[in-house]
Amino acid sequence: MQLYSFFNSSTSYRVRIALALKGVAFDTIPVNIRVGEHRAETYVDEVNPSAVVPAIVDGDFSLGQSLAILDYLDAKYPTPRLVPQDVEARARVLELSALISCDIHPVNNLRILKYLQGTLGLSPEQKDAWYQHWIAEGMAGVERLLEKHGHGAWCFGDAPTLADVCLVPQIANARRMGCDLSPYPRAVAVFEHASAHPAFAAAAPDKQPDFSA
Amino acid sequence: MQLYSFFNSSTSYRVRIALALKGVAFDTIPVNIRVGEHRAETYVDEVNPSAVVPAIVDGDFSLGQSLAILDYLDAKYPTPRLVPQDVEARARVLELSALISCDIHPVNNLRILKYLQGTLGLSPEQKDAWYQHWIAEGMAGVERLLEKHGHGAWCFGDAPTLADVCLVPQIANARRMGCDLSPYPRAVAVFEHASAHPAFAAAAPDKQPDFSA
Repeated sequence: MQLYSFFNSSTSYRVRIALALKGVAFDTIPVNIRVGEHRAETYVDEVNPSAVVPAIVDGDFSLGQSLAILDYLDAKYPTPRLVPQDVEARARVLELSALISCDIHPVNNLRILKYLQGTLGLSPEQKDAWYQHWIAEGMAGVERLLEKHGHGAWCFGDAPTLADVCLVPQIANARRMGCDLSPYPRAVAVFEHASAHPAFAAAAPDKQPDFSA
Repeated sequence: MQLYSFFNSSTSYRVRIALALKGVAFDTIPVNIRVGEHRAETYVDEVNPSAVVPAIVDGDFSLGQSLAILDYLDAKYPTPRLVPQDVEARARVLELSALISCDIHPVNNLRILKYLQGTLGLSPEQKDAWYQHWIAEGMAGVERLLEKHGHGAWCFGDAPTLADVCLVPQIANARRMGCDLSPYPRAVAVFEHASAHPAFAAAAPDKQPDFSA
């Protein structure tokens, strides 16, 4: 399997964690989104029509969008399963994953920050305030969900799920951007626990072949 | 079942379509996000810790986040199924759904537009340009995915899937905001076909009890 990935992309990080948890061997093909490699014609035509990272190529099947990739990996390599099969347990995991994937990550990713600073001419302070506003808004929801439904050392129980796979890159990103995470002790405790797991550690940005400081 | 919904919310619209397609009876409980009802303490504490719409309450089980709700409904009411069970067919449906749900909708929803105009003081022209930029960026990907993998009168085949459930509210929204959709003929053809279906028609914003012009 090939993974088209950018070291600092949270959505690529999610897929790297899942591949590592499942023990699936893969080759990383770096796509430098800082210089627009995700828009290259061959990448868009042959690998990922969404023109973003990540994407996987599994034999002759190529697939983009991290949530779709994670579902595909869970179906093809169900050990360990990241999304429970019990209907209500599954719903809880998908709810937290969607809060992070739809309400937090998309509004703070690289292309948005570039538009704010480039096209709109916002100052670095305004850009940071934007980032921190949406982290505060979204992480408050994450913390409330964990308080209400979370249990065990991971988000939901004693083993990692898709919720942890989404949470860890998001919190790593927020830390890197200097956000105050003290209002979210439960989420941070899960993050600390998860980060020490070998699969999560191996997937971190600074362990990737395309890492640059 | 109770659906906490706002007539003009695309994510509520998705859930309304799924409930109508599956023939599930439900009561709509309007949540006026324009005046912040989604932040009311009783709503956040008792119904939806994510503090957004939509949410469902099914007996004593409450759930937020449209993608989680749609998966739950597909498990509990599998006729008709919105996400195929075949691994690759499923991946294609989830890929297009995620492109809309993660890459397009979140950056253009009400709270973002309010921040742009309120906190950042952008002009109506700058706000419209923002909206149209992300529609153009995202819809180009949707069109490429449909060109490459789409077939039949719906996104993927001869029956609606989650991809259509996500596509219709997004295109309705883009039309309402005056976006040029002529570069996406395949997506618009699916939209026209789907909009004529009774379940999609019944779920439209102007058919809801809380509709206001």
